[in-house]
Order: sequence, then C-alpha cells, then structure tokens
Amino acid sequence: MHNYIQENKERFLNELIDLLKIPSVSADPSFKGDVSNAAQFLKERFQELEMDRVEIYPTNGHPIVYAEKIVDTSLPTVLVYGHYDVQPADPIELWHSGPFEPVIKTTEIHPEGAIFARGACDDKGQMYMHLKAFETMVKTGNLDCNAKFIIEGEEEVGSVNLEAFIRANQAMLAADVILVSDTGMLAKDVPSITTGLRGLSYVEVEVVGPNRDLHSGLYGGAVANPINVITEMIASLQDENKHITIPGFYDDVLEISDEERSEMAKAPYNEMAYCNSIDIKETAGEKGFSTLERATIRPTLDVNGIWGGYIGEGAKTVLPSKANAKISMRLVPNQDPEKITQLFKDHFEKIAPKSVTVKVTPHHGGEPALTPIDSDEYRAASLAVEEAFGKKPIPVRSGGSIPIISMFEKILGLKTILMGFGLDSDAIHSPNEHYGLFNYYKGIETIPLFYKYYAQIKK
Amino acid sequence: MHNYIQENKERFLNELIDLLKIPSVSADPSFKGDVSNAAQFLKERFQELEMDRVEIYPTNGHPIVYAEKIVDTSLPTVLVYGHYDVQPADPIELWHSGPFEPVIKTTEIHPEGAIFARGACDDKGQMYMHLKAFETMVKTGNLDCNAKFIIEGEEEVGSVNLEAFIRANQAMLAADVILVSDTGMLAKDVPSITTGLRGLSYVEVEVVGPNRDLHSGLYGGAVANPINVITEMIASLQDENKHITIPGFYDDVLEISDEERSEMAKAPYNEMAYCNSIDIKETAGEKGFSTLERATIRPTLDVNGIWGGYIGEGAKTVLPSKANAKISMRLVPNQDPEKITQLFKDHFEKIAPKSVTVKVTPHHGGEPALTPIDSDEYRAASLAVEEAFGKKPIPVRSGGSIPIISMFEKILGLKTILMGFGLDSDAIHSPNEHYGLFNYYKGIETIPLFYKYYAQIKK
Repeated sequence: MHNYIQENKERFLNELIDLLKIPSVSADPSFKGDVSNAAQFLKERFQELEMDRVEIYPTNGHPIVYAEKIVDTSLPTVLVYGHYDVQPADPIELWHSGPFEPVIKTTEIHPEGAIFARGACDDKGQMYMHLKAFETMVKTGNLDCNAKFIIEGEEEVGSVNLEAFIRANQAMLAADVILVSDTGMLAKDVPSITTGLRGLSYVEVEVVGPNRDLHSGLYGGAVANPINVITEMIASLQDENKHITIPGFYDDVLEISDEERSEMAKAPYNEMAYCNSIDIKETAGEKGFSTLERATIRPTLDVNGIWGGYIGEGAKTVLPSKANAKISMRLVPNQDPEKITQLFKDHFEKIAPKSVTVKVTPHHGGEPALTPIDSDEYRAASLAVEEAFGKKPIPVRSGGSIPIISMFEKILGLKTILMGFGLDSDAIHSPNEHYGLFNYYKGIETIPLFYKYYAQIKK
Repeated sequence: MHNYIQENKERFLNELIDLLKIPSVSADPSFKGDVSNAAQFLKERFQELEMDRVEIYPTNGHPIVYAEKIVDTSLPTVLVYGHYDVQPADPIELWHSGPFEPVIKTTEIHPEGAIFARGACDDKGQMYMHLKAFETMVKTGNLDCNAKFIIEGEEEVGSVNLEAFIRANQAMLAADVILVSDTGMLAKDVPSITTGLRGLSYVEVEVVGPNRDLHSGLYGGAVANPINVITEMIASLQDENKHITIPGFYDDVLEISDEERSEMAKAPYNEMAYCNSIDIKETAGEKGFSTLERATIRPTLDVNGIWGGYIGEGAKTVLPSKANAKISMRLVPNQDPEKITQLFKDHFEKIAPKSVTVKVTPHHGGEPALTPIDSDEYRAASLAVEEAFGKKPIPVRSGGSIPIISMFEKILGLKTILMGFGLDSDAIHSPNEHYGLFNYYKGIETIPLFYKYYAQIKK
C-alpha cells in the first residue's frame, strides 16, 4: 500500500485542493449552493471507488453523503464519520491568501509544506484521507473490513439534522466501530489518540431585583443591585482553590488513577510556551491538578457570557432591574449532564438572597465520552499508529465536547475512535487554517492499518 | 400676596399649561425647534414681569434664558436656577393622555387635581412657580431681594454647556444664594428641604485574560476566565455586611451624629410600601443603617453595567478574552471623588490575580454637597416653609447627585437651597408624569416667604 500512496501522492493532493476550492460554509445561507456542490463532489469521488452504494440524502438543512462497500458480511464493519462543511472565513482580511484558493507553503513546523485553506484540516483534509485510504485498500486488494461513510454538511452549525438521520437509518448504519479524524495529535513526532471527551451542562441564569431600572442615586445602597448580587453568587460557585462548591457536583466523577495521571504527564508540554501562545502571565484553576489535567480530566465552571445594566458608551447611573449570565460546566466521565444541571439549579436558587429572585434555564447538554484503552478498537488504533509513526501513541483526553459521539453511542451502541492527525498550530476556525502534507499522507497511511489490525483483533 | 395668588390662580395654571404644550425634549434633535420655542415663551413671560433685563443666550446646544431685576444693590440677591427642557416621553404607549396635551385629573394623593404632562413637575411646573411667585412679589410691592433667573434647556442631557456659561458670566450672576426647585418633599403634609446630595465616582473596568476568545472546552479549567475573575473581584469589593472593602474608602466620611440620625428617622417611611412600590421582597445593604440612611447618608458601590463573552440567543461555549463593568460609587459629604477614584483604581489593580490584566478608566465624578442647617439660607427656607405649611420642614439628605450644585459652589462660591415641592409619586422621567395643583400653588406661596426671611436674616 505504501507504494500505491507514493505513486498517487500528487493526485491525492490535487483532489483535496479541488474540494478545498468549494466554499462550503454551512453557517451562511448565501453559500448554500456551494455546500451542495461539495456534497456532489464527494459523491462523484466515492463513485470512482467501486462502492456498492453512494447516495446524497437531503435533510432540512445541508445534505448528508453516504457511501458503503460490504466486502463480506462476516467481516467487521467500520463506519467513518466526517464533515465536508467549513467554518466561515471571517475575519477574511487576516488571511495571507484566499481561504478558498488553496496554496502550499512551508512553515517552521511543516518544512515539507502545508496546504493553506479554510477546511484544510477541519475537516475536509482529515475526512478526505479516509477516501484515499479506502481507495488504497481497494486498489491494492487490502480491504479487510466492510466500510461505511457518513459525511455530513452541518457539523459547524451543530449537526442539527444528524440525529434524525441516524435514528431513521439505524439498520443501514449498523457497524462495529466508528472511526473519526476530526481531532488532533500532540505533535508530528508525538502521536496520540483521543480517548475521552468532556460533557457539558449549559445554563442561563437571570437575577431580578426591582421591577424596573432605578436611579442609582436615589436607590443605591438601599436596594440589592442584581449585578452586584450576580457577581457574588457566581463568585461563590468556586472556592479559593477553584473547587466548585455546588453540593454533590463531584460525587460521580470517575477519579483517575495515579498511574493514568503519570501516563498523561508524559505528553510533551511547556507551560511557558502555552502561556505565551495566548499571551497570559500564568495559568489558573483548580488546585492540585496540572494545567493539562485541568483542561481535560477535571470538570469546570465557566461563565461564557454576562450582561446587565448600561453597556453603551459613557456613564449612566442605573441600578438595573436584572442581570443575566450564561454558565457552562464541562463534565468528565460518569457525570450526568441532566443531574448536574439540576444540582446547579437547586444550588443557585438556594443561595439567592431574599432581595432578588432568580431563574435558571437549561440550554443543551452533552454527555462525556470515554474509549477505554483496553478496548478492541483502541488497541487496533494504537497498533496502527505505532506501525505508521514508529512510536506508540499517547492516549489523551480532550477537554472539549463532541456531542455527536455520545449520540452515536446512545443510538447505534458503538464506541468511537478519534484518530485525528491535526496539530494545535493548524489554526482551525481561524484565519490561515492549514494542514501539513506530512499529516495528510501519514493519515492515509495509518487508516488502512487500523482496518487491518481491527480485522485481526475481531477475528 | 395670598389674595393676589388666589385672584390669579387660573391664569397661573393656564400659563403653565401653555408651556407644557411645547415638547421641549432636549435629548432628541428633532425637537430642537420646540426647545427654542420654550425658551422664547419664557422670555416673553419674563418680559411681562417688569424685569430690568431679559435675554436668551445661545450655547453650543440649547439656549439659556436669563432675567434679572435689581431693586436695590444693598439688598441680598437670590439667583434662581431651573430648566425648561424635559425628558423624552418614551414609552409613549404607557401614557393615559398625550404627554404634551396637559390635562387635570384627580388622584388619590391629589384630590384637588394634578396636571398630567411631561415636565409637569420636572421642571417646568417647579420652575414656573418662581416666575409666578416673582410676579406676585412685584405686583404686590413685596420684592425684598434682587432676583436673577438662569433657566437652562439642557438639564436632562447633562447641562453640557452650563459650566462654560457660568464661568463666562460670573459678574452678571453674582448673588448671595442659589434657589432651586427641582427636588421633592417627603409628603404633602410633611414638608422637607434637601440639605445634602451624594457625590459620585464612576469608573469603567476591563479585565483581560487570553489575547483572543478561546474554546471553553479546550481551555476551560486551565486558564483564568475574565468573567469569572471580574465577578470575584467585584464581589470582593464588599464584605458580608456590605461594607466596602477598598482601603481608606471611609476615611473622610463625615459621620452623622446620633441626634441627626434620629431627626432623619422622623421622616414618615413604610418599609413594606417601599418594597411593594418596586416589587421586591426585602431591601438589602450595609449593616447597621436603615434603608433611608443607606440611600442617603452612606456611600455605595453599585455596578451600573457589566458585559463580557457571548450575550446573544442560545449557547456558545466561549472562554472570552475580556470582561468589562461600569461601577459607580455614591459619595457622602467630605469624600473627594478624585481621591476615591484613585483608591478604587489602586485597590482594583492590586487585587487582580496574575492570570489577568486590568484597566481602570475614570468617567465623570461629582462632589457631594451639603447645606448646613444652621446656615442663613437654610434658616430662611425653613421659616418660609414653616409659615406656608404650618409645619417645620424636615431636613433630608438625597441619595442622588446634582453635579451642577457643587459646580455653582465652586465657581460662584454660593450655597444652594434645594426647596423642592415634588413628590416621589409624581412619576418624573416616567409615563404619566404629573404635578399636584396643591404643590404648584403652595410653591408659589412659599417662595416669596423665602425672599422675605432671607432679606430679614441678611439685614
């Protein structure tokens, strides 16, 4: 297979470039036709790959591209998930070349070159690796598993129509494992596999004092100010060690063994470089855990938005009627978003002083996800990466949440392998997004090895 | 004089009605012509009053009307200040009659009737009492002081051109006391005189963390969130007794004697009615002081506005780069706004954790004001009110700030008597503003008595 990849290297890249030229921005209705064109482009590329079936499924939003090849029903089936839509390119003036005019340039991290374009890494580049890896397996007679592909066009707008599609097509999507390349690895020479995602509980709170805005001169001091109150209430949700004070909040947290923590600590990390990259003097957070641990294996409580009173130019002496905040809690394995949301609500209502009334409104939540490192799918992925990189991958927890992963698990009963090849420096969602050619080809090389080892383990 | 007022009662009211029909909304440029018309109207009314001089002074904004009558340079001179501009009428749909179509209706508090119109109390009604009181003194041969009138058209937009006018015309404005009716009294049968105003220190703060908005999944827990930090910092500015924790904040506060506090406590006040009027379950504030004391003789720290992160619809998991707040402190006599602003700035910068940077930007300030109750002007006002109402007025402190009062004191070296006849229920700045006919005529009756007693005391 290595030879096949080498011989078709240039074409593999040119096809990706053609895909990157299509501005499939799902968030902006004016790109609707382009999003469709990207789906059509994929359909045609799949049709060149001796699939059994290739279809575009319309949804209430952007279409889903589905393809499958069943070699032998006794073989395990890999369901590949990816997305062909991209984030908006704004702020466009910060791009050094057109976001939809892909160019290859070298960077310090990528002396072999990287392809610069919106979606280069997230997720067109990483998703397209799976088509070319599949081609490689088919053309060289090495397809050891059945393969199904579900490539959606709404990931960047919350996958709003995906769940209905999954529920309606459970039989068609039946598989043994889901394989996704939409995350990153620690470094080009430090391969890693994402084994855990945090869950999410997201609430909006409102603190109401007087029934109208008051004059802060005439009433100030006499009446509780909802903004002052909301700052006190929010501040009280964490103690001086940044431990969350909501009763019962930590009850279900799956504590991580010292062994696993020391494994995690082997990931290369430089605190000063980390601080410099976002221009802060020092990190901060829960006492007793490292920066990386706090960002991945520990739950959090962050205010994502706050507003109240006069926020225009200049000064206005209003004692406002109310104040609001959006607060999210990242959850770790075994914490239940609905339970946490209820604990938050009960606590927040309880700590409200009598001088105000509070309202807590839940927004969406998401369950944490965990792929055990002793599972078949993890072992297969680990062996594949080790063979391709010559180095055993480090299992890492991500601090983010990908709600569709727990959705897949719930509806299809499948675990997901997050075998991503991106790097933190790829600037996804930002101007000058790029994806290393090294990473692109390494991904194409690694994916067939996953199929191989997974088939072996499952035999 | 009483007879003259009775005989001209109807005309006194009709003239005010004509003035109230002019929509002199200073904040809205589309009413510019109407504001001018109101100034012209006043000029004509002054010209009917045997003044020595009546003039309209243009400014960069709306004009100032000036009038004077010097009876005898050996007599004391009263400088009357008022304003003929009004607040916008919005929300107009809540008015029961047109804001500029004055009607007389009775209310529970005003069985004799009240005039409903924007500006009825603030300040056209209260200001026009001074013209009619002056007319009464002149026509009945009772003008015991020289009189000067400065009636501006920009009070509701911050008196932006007043200071320059005062500075440029100090000789013309030379007087012994300033008399203003632009405040209220405790109740129709509880006359009071405002003897103190709070000052103001107003700052804007910015708390900056990372140099860009971060993903709260990837960075949450690892990095200080500027909104969480600003809530902690603001919450820490007051202790559990709502005492302000800024070092030195209370150093210059003129503590009030137990005697004066018990005098103040005689003012009629019903905590439950107060709470009901703004629909709160209970008041809150600094321990050890009554609600009225907290609103008047104690300094405060109120957040007037706060904003940061995502404040649109729905949920966005951003760890924002920064958070901002507008914070004002009401000050009491002897506190210096500039000193307090500096103390705030020093303290706020000091308590900032190293994980963020903070910026404190001062907005405008204002000095507290105090008219001692043993001063000549207060004694004259007290005697006047006592004669008119048959009851000694209660000296009260207002929690608000009227920066022009300390400006007058600084530039002209004059103390101000705030002899207001409005009631809290008059709904100034709100829909259905009104002014009791009782209050209007009582004001016209009281003002000449102030001139009389002031001339006697100064003799």
